[in-house]
Amino acid sequence: MSEEKYDLVILGGGTAGYVSAIRASQLGKKVALVEKSLLGGTCLHKGCIPTKALLKSAEVMRTITNATDYGVDVEGFKLNFARIQERKNEVVNQMFSGVNHLMEHNSIDVFNGTGRILGPSIFSPQSGTISVEYEDGESELIPNNNVLITTGSQPMSLSFLPFDHKVVLSSDDILQLEQLPNNLAIIGGGVIGLEFASLMTDFGVDVTVIEAGPRILPTESKIVAKTLRKELTDRGVTFYENIQLSESDITVDEDRIIITLNGEAVQFEKTLISIGRLPNTEDIGLNNTKIKLTDKKHISVNEYQQTDDKHIYAAGDCIGKLQLAHVGSKEGVIAIEHMFDQSPLPIDYNKMPKCVYTQPEVASIGLNIDQAKSENIKAKSIKVPFKAIGKAVIENTSNQSGFCEVIIDQEQDTVLGLNMIGPHVTELINEISLFQFMNGSTLELGLTTHAHPSLSEVLMELGLKVENRSIHV
Amino acid sequence: MSEEKYDLVILGGGTAGYVSAIRASQLGKKVALVEKSLLGGTCLHKGCIPTKALLKSAEVMRTITNATDYGVDVEGFKLNFARIQERKNEVVNQMFSGVNHLMEHNSIDVFNGTGRILGPSIFSPQSGTISVEYEDGESELIPNNNVLITTGSQPMSLSFLPFDHKVVLSSDDILQLEQLPNNLAIIGGGVIGLEFASLMTDFGVDVTVIEAGPRILPTESKIVAKTLRKELTDRGVTFYENIQLSESDITVDEDRIIITLNGEAVQFEKTLISIGRLPNTEDIGLNNTKIKLTDKKHISVNEYQQTDDKHIYAAGDCIGKLQLAHVGSKEGVIAIEHMFDQSPLPIDYNKMPKCVYTQPEVASIGLNIDQAKSENIKAKSIKVPFKAIGKAVIENTSNQSGFCEVIIDQEQDTVLGLNMIGPHVTELINEISLFQFMNGSTLELGLTTHAHPSLSEVLMELGLKVENRSIHV
Repeated sequence: MSEEKYDLVILGGGTAGYVSAIRASQLGKKVALVEKSLLGGTCLHKGCIPTKALLKSAEVMRTITNATDYGVDVEGFKLNFARIQERKNEVVNQMFSGVNHLMEHNSIDVFNGTGRILGPSIFSPQSGTISVEYEDGESELIPNNNVLITTGSQPMSLSFLPFDHKVVLSSDDILQLEQLPNNLAIIGGGVIGLEFASLMTDFGVDVTVIEAGPRILPTESKIVAKTLRKELTDRGVTFYENIQLSESDITVDEDRIIITLNGEAVQFEKTLISIGRLPNTEDIGLNNTKIKLTDKKHISVNEYQQTDDKHIYAAGDCIGKLQLAHVGSKEGVIAIEHMFDQSPLPIDYNKMPKCVYTQPEVASIGLNIDQAKSENIKAKSIKVPFKAIGKAVIENTSNQSGFCEVIIDQEQDTVLGLNMIGPHVTELINEISLFQFMNGSTLELGLTTHAHPSLSEVLMELGLKVENRSIHV
Repeated sequence: MSEEKYDLVILGGGTAGYVSAIRASQLGKKVALVEKSLLGGTCLHKGCIPTKALLKSAEVMRTITNATDYGVDVEGFKLNFARIQERKNEVVNQMFSGVNHLMEHNSIDVFNGTGRILGPSIFSPQSGTISVEYEDGESELIPNNNVLITTGSQPMSLSFLPFDHKVVLSSDDILQLEQLPNNLAIIGGGVIGLEFASLMTDFGVDVTVIEAGPRILPTESKIVAKTLRKELTDRGVTFYENIQLSESDITVDEDRIIITLNGEAVQFEKTLISIGRLPNTEDIGLNNTKIKLTDKKHISVNEYQQTDDKHIYAAGDCIGKLQLAHVGSKEGVIAIEHMFDQSPLPIDYNKMPKCVYTQPEVASIGLNIDQAKSENIKAKSIKVPFKAIGKAVIENTSNQSGFCEVIIDQEQDTVLGLNMIGPHVTELINEISLFQFMNGSTLELGLTTHAHPSLSEVLMELGLKVENRSIHV
């Protein structure tokens, strides 16, 4: 048994975990962090960061493809996929080394093993002692006063189509490819599937997206999804909607998969399954606690991320709210501050920014018009197209289909949400996050001077348009 | 004489002018706009927009130059300057047609001639009637109740080195080049000079910047200027500071200029003079009014842009405040609202965003640490480097010298200013503009959830760092 009793043990060193560890350390607490794999977790090693590194290379590829438009004539060019992967790894490694440094700097004790929660024992009247099992078979106990579970999630497979990591890939697998396939079926047209569709088509892969529901990107508005679908179609992606696959539709060989699509057998070199993520809530000792799981196996928590065992909290993907890195770390920080009596404000999930890093990018906050209507809110939507904004014209004269749309609650006169598709909207959304956090009015947004020329002027025009005084639309 | 009396005549159809015209029209006023050249003025035809279009092509050129790093091997490439200029003109023309459409849409009468203010006459007891003189020698009078002067500014030449528009160029001239020179001397290391230095070096031109003062970019902090200078030097720009040129230092030929720099005669194909801009306040009839000029020939106005002739207002470059398009249009709107009793808030120039679209970009609001100290304010500065931000690492693994710095008034505990150098800071500054407009606290900035990964996270970390609770630094 570890000699010291920790104020807090955190189970899982992903984004939610390590950020929470730093916050607790800032509050003067003695913190242990248990991670069975690499600090930084999914976001750093298998998610946000490596995907965005690949997307950056895809952007370079696309820029070169269209360079003639901008006045640079390119004789010939070739993708060097080995270098793309190497660069991705350089980015990940630099940030990984940063996270390790942060743990040292904040005096956080890291235990590199598999952690499980134990029940009450003669050493500890309450559940929560963490047992850590190491690869060499050794183990130790970490007594503590509080636990934060941030064990994250993992890619979900189709019941009849398990990952073979060769032809049937998870998002973890596809990030490790050594060679690009000639063609790729992406099963699941949500955020992850579409980000890969966007980058793989830019890399020259023939991409087919197969979606079970009636449309791709169900988390965003119909019009945003439709705009993105058109853009990706124009770049060569094929879409199938309303395809509920079953075992009989699929044949997997050594080096190919055949999928029956609307009666026709179509062959692919590889398939990416991106139908969602499963919380990592099994085999971590929850049965030794009073913690309850939802029917989707997420840990049930209150608004401060506290479980039914009051000294055990949970945050991030394992509680299954928005499953975004920045939401996970925010949940973690709130858990820590509540645990140590700092009176945090609970998260308002309707004010969390959500981004899709496809090209074009998509970003939103709060409700879109479809969601507002389905909740029977008397809402109106007001839109400004990017083509009214000089900087957007400069960025891309040939593609001007993007827009920014705000949803107004007509009874409360408040902003229910905002959604955008277009250049750099994954940056622009942060201004709206501040705006919503500070409960700004559309008039304040419209009266704020925005630099000219900048893409963000679209937000100012939108704020003014709500007040019937926009200038450029 | 025009048959109708206008509520307002605006002299000058640049950004400040046409935006003000729209605002007045929204208030139900009958508006005339007098422009001797093209609607959109300097910003659209000779400033912000064409420069940024060229900078976009420069960015494409730079991306291709560095493509191997990102995993795209380019065999060979060549600048097509004719196409670059053509694209720039396409951008300008699209937006020009937009402005013309806006005038029609808002029922604004445009008079395409040279406007001058007349004094009191038997037709009008107060000064302000506008006489418009057309190219064909015809003229007419426009009676009105109010005048807004938005005549803008023009490039300033050196007294001993007039523009010849062939070798000695203004920023207007350099935008019209049909061929790139092999080398270029830029006299004046301010914002305009440095934007051209950045894009011309990316286009392969050998650039030398000659600055009279002790350092380039005197409007920004020393450390920002130093960082930019190093980046541009690394890309091939040569800098000379503390060079006060006189007539004897310069010889201009048909096709070259020789400049003596620290005793050595250096030859250039062309030179750009970017030492500032002169207000267009001559020959517009100000002598017929009570309007006063400052010693730099700017029109004197009060905080609502009202001149000493109470029914005549002035806005934009001709009043000589920040000489930025978005400030000019804001000044114009405030003038209109004051004129028509809408009780606008005056501009706080310390809350206006300022951008330099060099690569790397520079952006700021309010005071920098040097300025705060020179005003004897007890100030501290707190900085977050972009290399702590994942998205910045993804954008550019090889160049991570950028940062974001906030200046805090230690006695008032308020934000005096913020300055940044790095990727896309000309967008990020707009979040800070909203933040300052809404009088946000650094804690609010830090507690606002910013999407991960995004460059804007630098602002969140900075807000948290002020509160001693930053996560990643």
